[in-house]
Amino acid sequence: MFHYQLEKKSGQPVYLQLIDQIRTDILRGLLPGGTKLPSKRTAAADLGVSVVTVKNAYEQLLAEGYILSSERKGYYVADINGEQYHQPERQVHKKQPVAPVEKRINLASGGVSSGLFPMSVWMKLSRSVYLEYGKELLKKAPYNGHPLLRDAISAYLYQLYGISVDPERILVTSGNEHVYNTLETFFGDDRVYGIEDPGHRTIASLYGQHGARVEYLSLDEKGVTAGEVRHKKVQILHISPSHHFPTGITMPASRRSELLAWAGEAEDRFIIEDEYDSEFRMAGKPIPPLLAVDQKGKVIYINTFTKTIAPSLRIGYAVLPQVLADRYREKMGFLSCTVPVAEQLILAKFMSDGYLSRHVHRMRTYYRHIRDKLLRSIEEGCAGEEFSVSGVDSGLHFLLHVRNGMPEDEMKQILRENGVDVRFLSDYTAKGEAGADKALVISYADLAEEQIPDLIGVLRQIAGGDNKKEAD
Amino acid sequence: MFHYQLEKKSGQPVYLQLIDQIRTDILRGLLPGGTKLPSKRTAAADLGVSVVTVKNAYEQLLAEGYILSSERKGYYVADINGEQYHQPERQVHKKQPVAPVEKRINLASGGVSSGLFPMSVWMKLSRSVYLEYGKELLKKAPYNGHPLLRDAISAYLYQLYGISVDPERILVTSGNEHVYNTLETFFGDDRVYGIEDPGHRTIASLYGQHGARVEYLSLDEKGVTAGEVRHKKVQILHISPSHHFPTGITMPASRRSELLAWAGEAEDRFIIEDEYDSEFRMAGKPIPPLLAVDQKGKVIYINTFTKTIAPSLRIGYAVLPQVLADRYREKMGFLSCTVPVAEQLILAKFMSDGYLSRHVHRMRTYYRHIRDKLLRSIEEGCAGEEFSVSGVDSGLHFLLHVRNGMPEDEMKQILRENGVDVRFLSDYTAKGEAGADKALVISYADLAEEQIPDLIGVLRQIAGGDNKKEAD
Repeated sequence: MFHYQLEKKSGQPVYLQLIDQIRTDILRGLLPGGTKLPSKRTAAADLGVSVVTVKNAYEQLLAEGYILSSERKGYYVADINGEQYHQPERQVHKKQPVAPVEKRINLASGGVSSGLFPMSVWMKLSRSVYLEYGKELLKKAPYNGHPLLRDAISAYLYQLYGISVDPERILVTSGNEHVYNTLETFFGDDRVYGIEDPGHRTIASLYGQHGARVEYLSLDEKGVTAGEVRHKKVQILHISPSHHFPTGITMPASRRSELLAWAGEAEDRFIIEDEYDSEFRMAGKPIPPLLAVDQKGKVIYINTFTKTIAPSLRIGYAVLPQVLADRYREKMGFLSCTVPVAEQLILAKFMSDGYLSRHVHRMRTYYRHIRDKLLRSIEEGCAGEEFSVSGVDSGLHFLLHVRNGMPEDEMKQILRENGVDVRFLSDYTAKGEAGADKALVISYADLAEEQIPDLIGVLRQIAGGDNKKEAD
Repeated sequence: MFHYQLEKKSGQPVYLQLIDQIRTDILRGLLPGGTKLPSKRTAAADLGVSVVTVKNAYEQLLAEGYILSSERKGYYVADINGEQYHQPERQVHKKQPVAPVEKRINLASGGVSSGLFPMSVWMKLSRSVYLEYGKELLKKAPYNGHPLLRDAISAYLYQLYGISVDPERILVTSGNEHVYNTLETFFGDDRVYGIEDPGHRTIASLYGQHGARVEYLSLDEKGVTAGEVRHKKVQILHISPSHHFPTGITMPASRRSELLAWAGEAEDRFIIEDEYDSEFRMAGKPIPPLLAVDQKGKVIYINTFTKTIAPSLRIGYAVLPQVLADRYREKMGFLSCTVPVAEQLILAKFMSDGYLSRHVHRMRTYYRHIRDKLLRSIEEGCAGEEFSVSGVDSGLHFLLHVRNGMPEDEMKQILRENGVDVRFLSDYTAKGEAGADKALVISYADLAEEQIPDLIGVLRQIAGGDNKKEAD
């Protein structure tokens, strides 16, 4: 009986859409008083939604008085007098229009592929945390995070890198940006921060938020150079040695030693090692993080669960050298940890019960599959001089260099018109288009396998591959 | 066969403890090579842990080479040569000793009485959020918070004050401190912040964190004065008009008008209205918040769920005037909302299903009962010239003024020795003891009814009431 179009991907939950549609039909008289509604099971089958969704919708409409239920008749439409139901309503504000969800190809997302996340495990753990801790969950955690989460992070780091980190050195924060922000506040506005160029724009924005000097450091094939770091009088150096965004450079051991040596030369020099997606090394030998070889307490290791779990979790952490951990407690220990305690404990369980490692393993396999398929398709579908790739061995993105004589703006327009969201290397550098290699930054975490042929089709348009095909 | 003591409440996950114990026994030769280990099921039963825990431990030991498995024998100890298996071990760190929980009387807590919180409802809602939204929960919320939570907050404000706030003006943050921090970053370090003295020390620390000028404003019986605000050239004025901490002053309408007039005189003047516990008005007529009478877009209303739910939730919010909401989006919209999406949706449901209002109502009744009992006990038990109370009509604290000729240090020592955690008014003022009235700040949210007689006994010691009793 119901023939409503419910948009599962729209911003509004399906049951709310269903309520709106039924209510509108009742108010318009399309469903007159006394009309029997289909059973929950039938409606669910008709609409392709779960029985629970229909149940929720019916119960809400029941509560609002639009429908009634009786043991014999089931649910039926109430005999409403239009006027009678005009309750004083809170002023309804115009909503931001929900962007239509198109079949776009998203290569610019910082998101993850959520299809494989073990949501039911997370739910189960959440339940067990509530049962196990009960009202303990209402108590504040220490400023640096709940001890169980810091323990779990310490154990995870041991498992990843074989390094042993005192949980007292770990600081739990609300995601990556919040880590940057917190570290900037901790170090102060009078420091000189050195960041990689190209790189995420938010890093510069956050360090520079309170007027601190931010120096952009250019990269050679190994990453930032100790020479430039020295020359620009950097004090706090922010780098992603295991996998740089967006170039994909993995910094070799030699360059790491040079930078550690630089940091060791003065007391106020520190390196922030930002390992945002290091778990997803796809090929080649892993290089231990700076944290593992830091003898002098110069490295602040930071990471988040944005890539390994989801960007919506908003949990990140820093591992501070002992001397900074002590100083942090003195200076910032009066602040409350910003992450809800329940969320911390669910994550701790997810980690210590081994689910995180298993999930990362599964995702690595999945992402590798997508990457391989994509690289193969590019090689086969866009053969020619126009395209080459770099930075493919680690993380969830690589560069697709383009040599086609077409200006970036024109390429961007073709991509946009064909529903491809993608950024260029030039979007990530302070130097702008003139200073950057012409390259697309392909973040493939959110790319579905079945979208690859379409994507290749669009890339061929950029390369002029379509013409070539006709010539074949 | 296993007789290990595994501490479920210790900081270290149980499976890691089990791994450590088995590995130690193998290395010590207590479990010689070839020894068959109990089946996972048997070991779990012996140790009183889950089969999964044992499984995880065995798998890790298997991976480390300490044990082997075969289809026929199950798990058995590997024949290890001591040297060969000396892998670097995860160093075990000394834990911070857990403070013993004493039967202390806590009058200095910013906490809440958690006994009446409907934890089972929260659990139920958490479950229904996971079921309803599923993997939608993995997607990031907008920078200003999930629309459903902002809607719920808007509806709640309507219910509390009858004012209609566009959810686009609401900014969801990680608790009160994070709101201050965010506002300071938004306004910038070159503003002059005016804060109440006495007041929470963290307010000054947070606004002054990046070097902004912070002016302390003294209070008359109505709160800060427009004269001093002008004189000190304040631009951003932070006040708690509905209930000041720690004095308990409720600012009357006349003073509110004067301050709103001050704010209206210049474009860069704003008032941050901090309503941290306004829901708990105990007596007298409520005065609408500045937000409700703000004609010129000068008031930033902030509140949290720390007092109404729990300090561990870490969710707060600001309501910005439209002009600032727009400016905030432009300047800070690139930042991610720091609150986990699941937590936002559970809270939204808790609010929109009416549970928050019911809980606040219940807690108000409970706190009023505690307050009344305490005030009555003070009146009866500490009769005399020494004590008087003020600021008792609202919120979860009041002042107990003491006139006994005893220095504060001496009083503090008596209180401490008798297990009473309490602060003095002088602890909250920049002027220190010399500038403050001699008064205890009695925060009674965490006080149990049965502790009241003990507390009165200690107060009598301070007043010399014990002597009086002997004289009776």
